[in-house]
Amino acid sequence: MKPSPRQLVDGLLAGDRAALARAITLAESSLPRHKELAEEVLERCLPHAGGATRLGITGVPGVGKSTFVDALGVHLVRDREETVAVLAVDPSSPVHGGSILGDKTRMPRLASDPRAFIRPSPSGGSLGGVARATRQAILLCEAAGYRNILVETVGVGQSEVAVADMTDCFLLLMLPGAGDELQGVKRGIMELVDLVIINKADGGNVDRAARARRDYESALHLFPPAPHGWAPVVSVCSAQEGRGVREAWEIVLRHRAHMQASGWLLRRRAGQARRWLFELIEGHLREAFLQSASVRDRMPEVEALVETGALSPLRAARQLLEAWNPAGKR
Amino acid sequence: MKPSPRQLVDGLLAGDRAALARAITLAESSLPRHKELAEEVLERCLPHAGGATRLGITGVPGVGKSTFVDALGVHLVRDREETVAVLAVDPSSPVHGGSILGDKTRMPRLASDPRAFIRPSPSGGSLGGVARATRQAILLCEAAGYRNILVETVGVGQSEVAVADMTDCFLLLMLPGAGDELQGVKRGIMELVDLVIINKADGGNVDRAARARRDYESALHLFPPAPHGWAPVVSVCSAQEGRGVREAWEIVLRHRAHMQASGWLLRRRAGQARRWLFELIEGHLREAFLQSASVRDRMPEVEALVETGALSPLRAARQLLEAWNPAGKR
Repeated sequence: MKPSPRQLVDGLLAGDRAALARAITLAESSLPRHKELAEEVLERCLPHAGGATRLGITGVPGVGKSTFVDALGVHLVRDREETVAVLAVDPSSPVHGGSILGDKTRMPRLASDPRAFIRPSPSGGSLGGVARATRQAILLCEAAGYRNILVETVGVGQSEVAVADMTDCFLLLMLPGAGDELQGVKRGIMELVDLVIINKADGGNVDRAARARRDYESALHLFPPAPHGWAPVVSVCSAQEGRGVREAWEIVLRHRAHMQASGWLLRRRAGQARRWLFELIEGHLREAFLQSASVRDRMPEVEALVETGALSPLRAARQLLEAWNPAGKR
Repeated sequence: MKPSPRQLVDGLLAGDRAALARAITLAESSLPRHKELAEEVLERCLPHAGGATRLGITGVPGVGKSTFVDALGVHLVRDREETVAVLAVDPSSPVHGGSILGDKTRMPRLASDPRAFIRPSPSGGSLGGVARATRQAILLCEAAGYRNILVETVGVGQSEVAVADMTDCFLLLMLPGAGDELQGVKRGIMELVDLVIINKADGGNVDRAARARRDYESALHLFPPAPHGWAPVVSVCSAQEGRGVREAWEIVLRHRAHMQASGWLLRRRAGQARRWLFELIEGHLREAFLQSASVRDRMPEVEALVETGALSPLRAARQLLEAWNPAGKR
């Protein structure tokens, strides 16, 4: 028998990992019935959520994200004796068959620790759907008592923006000598970043990493200061050898202290809640529209006409909206 | 006195640049009154649109996009004696104050040619709004007789996806030696690309560019073949010195011939029209919702509650949707 939302929440709040996993699965489902259950579970969890340090982590494939997350997670659970949940947003994973973010086998040390909870990216669906599920998973993990949440994402399109918009601090992993100064770094992403870590600063790379650090530091000076007054910090590490990981986390904590003292942590989260509200509204509107009988009946024909060019998308949109809403309720 | 939509269209179809510019300005406006006029203008232009070769161009800042577009445009208007319109999608431009895509002063040779029409990115608003306006501008330029449309975008987040979704062929500009193989290239973007051009293959860079070309060629082999059967082509050029530009355009034409012969050009445009339809619907729904009296009245209070955490976004969304639609029309 399936547990009721209440039972699920009781288990989750008591730290039952199976209950947490099941609640996240509900949040990932696109079935209307599951969505309602997921919302009920989440509502009950919300009073217990919000307490974690939420860190977003991005970087191009090959930068060593999994190794870094593994090393950082191990530092948190072993040296600091804290709990950590690892989540991921990777809308490309199911289609492209690349490495799966949040794959436990790529974080062997962390995966075996009882203080860590690792969950791969929800698969399938749009970025919007994947991001919505992960946003809910953060809150569920917090309610389950996880004190630190790491959300990793791959450097693909808009997913970094989505992850920066659900975390308190955003970390960009880079390689030493991967290019001159900001070469290869997207302008729009740089302005989301609170912390740049140059990974793989080991072996013959140590000098290049130090040079890259200086380059990034001077490049970052070119960006206008953020309203919250935190200037992005650049540091180096070797996740493979475990060096620089403690220092990276100390910067995260310094960032957190700055954001808390200045009131910007609350403001950042308030803005995130507001944008989440609008995302939810848009999702509901789209669904209500597409699932209404009048639209469902006409859509196949309209789509076909639009695809052949016999009907312009502009006119088609107007026609469908009128069919949906004949009384002209605007 | 302002011209009627009909007068505007008559001027535009006759090749009047002021009429074209005014029609694009209408398409960029967010005023409901302008939107209606813009739709009427566009509907009248649609029968005359669709004939151009639409090329999307992306690449990180510093790769020489403006120089390349200038050189390619000059090749089109002088060597080929064809017309060209240059448009841009850069949602970041107004906020970040960087260089403006489509700025005429950065394309000095092309800007002075009567066969070229250059229009900077619409400023302000979301990526959705900027993309919608540019999509309409493409059609207006086609109706005005421009045979080639170049749409440039900067390598920021989702804007590349948007531009690939409004063009027939998508070109990625790269630098020689900017990194090993695919380092710095986002996986998600690589799968949109039909053509990679390594720019700045001049001076001491010639060998590095040749090496980069081989590297990219072997890296591109790692991607699964696209359903249309076109494998991305890698070429080198020096936009500064004008070398390789003709060759780049020949690849664009080869790509076009392949897509036409295989029927994939029509399929690509059909998919674009369908996605445009859904974007329009979502925009209309959002607006109808936000502008309805019942939502407008409650929104400020609800937003405030959500921002302080007193009301969850989930519950807030449900409440607003119910307020909008009390009869439960789903």
